[in-house]
Amino acid sequence: MPETLPENSVGLVTAQKQHFEEPLALTCGRTLENYDLVYETYGELNADQSNAILICHALSGDHHAAGYHSMDDRKPGWWESCIGPGKPFDTNHFFVVALNNLGGCSGSTGPNTLNPASGQLWGSDFPIVTVEDWIQSQARLADSLGIQQWAAVVGGSLGGMQVMQWSIDFPERIRHALVIASAPKLSAQNIAFNEVARQAILSDPEFFDGHFYQHDTVPHRGLKLARMLGHITYLSDEAMRGKFGRELREGKINFGFDVEFQIESYLRYQGQSFVNRFDANTYLLMTKTLDYYDPAAKFDNELARAFTHGDTEFLVCSFTSDWRFAPERSQEIVHALLDARRKVTYAEIEANQGHDAFLMPIPQYMNVLNAYMARVKKEIS
Amino acid sequence: MPETLPENSVGLVTAQKQHFEEPLALTCGRTLENYDLVYETYGELNADQSNAILICHALSGDHHAAGYHSMDDRKPGWWESCIGPGKPFDTNHFFVVALNNLGGCSGSTGPNTLNPASGQLWGSDFPIVTVEDWIQSQARLADSLGIQQWAAVVGGSLGGMQVMQWSIDFPERIRHALVIASAPKLSAQNIAFNEVARQAILSDPEFFDGHFYQHDTVPHRGLKLARMLGHITYLSDEAMRGKFGRELREGKINFGFDVEFQIESYLRYQGQSFVNRFDANTYLLMTKTLDYYDPAAKFDNELARAFTHGDTEFLVCSFTSDWRFAPERSQEIVHALLDARRKVTYAEIEANQGHDAFLMPIPQYMNVLNAYMARVKKEIS
Repeated sequence: MPETLPENSVGLVTAQKQHFEEPLALTCGRTLENYDLVYETYGELNADQSNAILICHALSGDHHAAGYHSMDDRKPGWWESCIGPGKPFDTNHFFVVALNNLGGCSGSTGPNTLNPASGQLWGSDFPIVTVEDWIQSQARLADSLGIQQWAAVVGGSLGGMQVMQWSIDFPERIRHALVIASAPKLSAQNIAFNEVARQAILSDPEFFDGHFYQHDTVPHRGLKLARMLGHITYLSDEAMRGKFGRELREGKINFGFDVEFQIESYLRYQGQSFVNRFDANTYLLMTKTLDYYDPAAKFDNELARAFTHGDTEFLVCSFTSDWRFAPERSQEIVHALLDARRKVTYAEIEANQGHDAFLMPIPQYMNVLNAYMARVKKEIS
Repeated sequence: MPETLPENSVGLVTAQKQHFEEPLALTCGRTLENYDLVYETYGELNADQSNAILICHALSGDHHAAGYHSMDDRKPGWWESCIGPGKPFDTNHFFVVALNNLGGCSGSTGPNTLNPASGQLWGSDFPIVTVEDWIQSQARLADSLGIQQWAAVVGGSLGGMQVMQWSIDFPERIRHALVIASAPKLSAQNIAFNEVARQAILSDPEFFDGHFYQHDTVPHRGLKLARMLGHITYLSDEAMRGKFGRELREGKINFGFDVEFQIESYLRYQGQSFVNRFDANTYLLMTKTLDYYDPAAKFDNELARAFTHGDTEFLVCSFTSDWRFAPERSQEIVHALLDARRKVTYAEIEANQGHDAFLMPIPQYMNVLNAYMARVKKEIS
């Protein structure tokens, strides 16, 4: 808990909720009759609404991207490193919007909210939403905030997929697209990891076919396993070696199944914390949203053809030690953009933190974001 | 089921069992008062007992390394590609021995055998055994077979660790050491994957603290998850892409949690098959055996000092796309051997199959093994 909030933080923030009455037709064929989106904003929208930035969250993120909800908060929002006064997404100049996506579990309509049709929580009856569905709902949020065009849409990982889809579905509404540590679609290996995570949750006897709320429990074993596995893929082998090596927690081997190595302690802790804050149905949904994303599919698998409309300019960033979404995957995006004759800047950041690097204030990375956003800033002033 | 057995197979084989009455003091401090080892042999031991090869199995292997148990067998032993007449471990010239290690679940004393002290199956009361313990038990098996010195000890992955330990503990009893797709110790990432697999089993409500046999059940959910996860690490990203890509099983997305992608189908099938043939307590033990292995630890973490005794010659093999035990890990072994002034041949095989490559008849790999074993053959003739 900070006694005083850091000067370069947006400080105390309050989440807001927007209710949408217009039905949303989803890719899966079902319709959400109405829904809520929870969001936060940082900075001020300027008079001509030209300084708005949308932040899209990844698998386990939410609308709380920066600042603190109270002076008692132990931690700030998940992208505090990048959002705030003087930071790349500089709240002295930009109006930053971050939302919790549909299907999320932090206040927006999703599995842990009320299904009006049944009077119960949605649970596994909540439809599987796609990146395309999210973009539609985010566009309506933009409308409600009076934002016709985003100065930039920004996201890492699954967030980067949303950024790409904005440029495909609403090219006239996005001037700059910042696609960070992402991929044009999941590989078989990515899907495989998601599948093991899903099976861990689905096979947990306390999952109750996704209606565990009514049984006053959660599939804690499965969700914990899913998160432990996730964390392995977020870190590089090198980062794990540097952080934990083969260090023993008690200095010696005990020939038993309690925690022995530091890495075991870390994973169990991360897994348990996640169970306390995240919803298992949302985790299942988000992994499916990831698996399904494949914007080239509609274009005979030619990604470049998805990017042919509009004037959006791109920054694509990757991290050398990221093996979940390796630099090669970002390069596929860059090549498609070049083939589509789009303006694109590509930065491959030397970093040993693995996929998690996109959340960290790595100097070279901050320099790239600052330089790119300085250009965006000029366009609005 | 083959109608006639292939000519280059050892053909029909029968497992044998050896009982040992002399107590075995284990690294963990406990003692096995007596135990059985199940093994198979292929080929004939020559008059001066100079042509014996020991095959050490990896995590989920056993003593059935080659041939068929009956004409109805769907599959031969796990290393049929390398053991047989005219193959690298040529049964026309060598007497090949393969055993199921202590703690295994295929007939040797382990969690699913009777604990004489309790009159029940051992379950989780079975002690955690180390690679060093295995070498001691394997040496006694050699004694019982009249083999004073192995022409070669051979193994891949965890099997390769046993080979190294033979050269450390009984340098005078091993002329050639073939260490394939192995590592001098696990990395933090390796341990992390093992830990998730263990937690999957340990947290399965049907594990019953390792005494599930008495409840007439098995922790099938946990063991299945463990194996699914294992399979991801046995294959390379490239191999998965080649084998499964993003192919959909029914040609279209169904927006549900049944199998959609081919890779999901593969993993679920592999996981379920494993549940039908393997023991969860053995799986737990074997992952611990892997985690603990660190022969340099006794030598101030200088691996070379572990290798200073004897005249054993080494072949070390790795595979380019193996990310579980990458070529760099094999190179650590090679460097230590060179520092210890040992004769060592190193081969890095171009292969896209990942860690599983060591089980496959890849031409370059077979050439290397054949060439090396031709030398060993000369020494015995």
